[in-house]
Amino acid sequence: MKISIERATLLRAVAQAQSVVERRNTIPILANVLIDAEGDTVTFRATDLDIEVLDKAPAKVGRAGGTTVSAVTLHEIVRKLPDGALVELEEDSAAGRLSVSAGRSNFSLATLPREDFPIMASSEYSSNFKAKAEVLRRLFDKSKFAISTEETRYYLNGVYMHIADADGGQVLRCVATDGHRLARIDADLPEGAAEMAGVIVPRKTVGELRKLLDEDDMDIAVSVSETKVRFATPEITLTSKVIDGTFPDYTRVIPQGNTRKLEVDASDFAKAVDRVATVSSERSRAVKLQLDEDRLILSVNAPDSGAAEEELAVAYGDERLEIGFNAKYLLEIASQVDRENAVFLFNSSGDPALMREGNDTTAVYVVMPMRV
Amino acid sequence: MKISIERATLLRAVAQAQSVVERRNTIPILANVLIDAEGDTVTFRATDLDIEVLDKAPAKVGRAGGTTVSAVTLHEIVRKLPDGALVELEEDSAAGRLSVSAGRSNFSLATLPREDFPIMASSEYSSNFKAKAEVLRRLFDKSKFAISTEETRYYLNGVYMHIADADGGQVLRCVATDGHRLARIDADLPEGAAEMAGVIVPRKTVGELRKLLDEDDMDIAVSVSETKVRFATPEITLTSKVIDGTFPDYTRVIPQGNTRKLEVDASDFAKAVDRVATVSSERSRAVKLQLDEDRLILSVNAPDSGAAEEELAVAYGDERLEIGFNAKYLLEIASQVDRENAVFLFNSSGDPALMREGNDTTAVYVVMPMRV
Repeated sequence: MKISIERATLLRAVAQAQSVVERRNTIPILANVLIDAEGDTVTFRATDLDIEVLDKAPAKVGRAGGTTVSAVTLHEIVRKLPDGALVELEEDSAAGRLSVSAGRSNFSLATLPREDFPIMASSEYSSNFKAKAEVLRRLFDKSKFAISTEETRYYLNGVYMHIADADGGQVLRCVATDGHRLARIDADLPEGAAEMAGVIVPRKTVGELRKLLDEDDMDIAVSVSETKVRFATPEITLTSKVIDGTFPDYTRVIPQGNTRKLEVDASDFAKAVDRVATVSSERSRAVKLQLDEDRLILSVNAPDSGAAEEELAVAYGDERLEIGFNAKYLLEIASQVDRENAVFLFNSSGDPALMREGNDTTAVYVVMPMRV
Repeated sequence: MKISIERATLLRAVAQAQSVVERRNTIPILANVLIDAEGDTVTFRATDLDIEVLDKAPAKVGRAGGTTVSAVTLHEIVRKLPDGALVELEEDSAAGRLSVSAGRSNFSLATLPREDFPIMASSEYSSNFKAKAEVLRRLFDKSKFAISTEETRYYLNGVYMHIADADGGQVLRCVATDGHRLARIDADLPEGAAEMAGVIVPRKTVGELRKLLDEDDMDIAVSVSETKVRFATPEITLTSKVIDGTFPDYTRVIPQGNTRKLEVDASDFAKAVDRVATVSSERSRAVKLQLDEDRLILSVNAPDSGAAEEELAVAYGDERLEIGFNAKYLLEIASQVDRENAVFLFNSSGDPALMREGNDTTAVYVVMPMRV
């Protein structure tokens, strides 16, 4: 293999590759990126055995072929090369080395044979559709904060992407929950997605996917099978195993009968929660909300360190209510609101609360109360 | 005590206080800041028993008095208050609480009695002089990277500030070294400093001092005794114990007979060192310099991961020379150069190298070689 490639193009590809490989590996080749040159294209492939990312880039191919080198080292080198450099990669298979040259810099990296590189088995995808990057970004960005980190509840360690029935018909829906809070985000049903089986997309895949979604208008090809999900732009294909488990029936968690409505400026609310939580003990982080006619009092009482109280002018017309929440959860859901007021719907102080942005029911959050 | 104070003024004072207090304390009151109001001034005092910082700020004092509260909590609260807020602090000594109010936010913090707060014993300072913030900043900024972190060599855990004889007469000098590299920075002798006893200013004090030195033209009052050093602006007084030990005779370490002169663009040199070091093993980080007629080849050979080589055009007219260094040390000293070329002076491959900026002998760096 012998190729010339623009530094910027190479950097993008190896950046994606090095972020997929695991830093600590018992299988040495999993630290490597597989570089394959043919025609006028080079492909870069990296995997952690659960996720595989494949990046195609244009290059001048002097000699076709392929090899594998450390993704992290190659990324570091390319990152440090000057902007605009032309990079030459040339394999010396007899010596087991890949030379990397640009200007007066020359590197020689240890390789491992391409034959040993694990390629993810291809799948029969039962469902294929296209969605705009902007749409997928909203679905995952607004739900991922609620992903559980508890390894014992592995079926909650991802975002449940599925088709659901909503008021206006079927929607493409992402749900995440850790048992303390839940996010449910809907988007219009893409053409061809109606039959898609629901899949739990793992946390790491959600993170890698995010890098494909920067250009609002780009069409992302989504393919789903029972065991895998694939997201592809013309250059990058991200394939991931999905979590082998059953996502719990979240619909029962979403309160239907909450009628006590609080409307509040989300940013003012978040700042006030953040301030009163300053004195809370690190373990509990409990904040009390006291609601009265158009008035909200936020308070914290931590016997050791002190107490805090703040009043906010809000829209509230129901009975007096006292309810407690974890400050972190309140802050996280309030930060999802970007256009309108935050609307909270409460029932009693022992019941979960529901939050949405204005009257928008395509993004709904549930948060469990705490005793305060 | 009852005072009203501008949020920005209060923030500056408690920011300085909370950075001095130690996060983990066996003595609870050391986590607190002592707030003392009298006349139209409030003083804020914090200490870790080695360093004491005292900040004077203007305030409207409704009732004189003083108390202590958690520096970190008070800082967090004030930081989160809106810009431009007026903050009221009022002590309820019967309840052992300090109330902090601004707008609709009210906090009540646990206090500890001011009588229990340790005040650093005052010293007889044998030497007092003034220096511009800009001058002190250069002395400490350019030397602090070489401070040792080895606790067994405690006398190297700071910057040695003293009066020394240089070519043009006496100078105010800062020296730091960890045995692998050394920085020696000189400044014009300030009036009244000639008799100053040399002191080792601890690393943490150097860090705290840096915050007093942002305004180039500000006069900093420096006072030195055998056991303490004090730096003061009109608002802030930083007093610190000095390290009780003897700084080694560094003059013997600075090579006098190095005649082989290399002149190189410091930024190009640093970038090249950084690039070739990418493949070095994490433990050794050794980079080899090969010098020949106006040519420098930097190289690394790490059997496991690979090799790297880069050539730089330089000014060098002496004999061929090969010498190895720790890449990190080379990068650190090269980054001290900001105006002119870096000038290296070598002797043999086993001898320490000297570096300076152009012909400027007021900032000199020494770095020990490594076998490569």
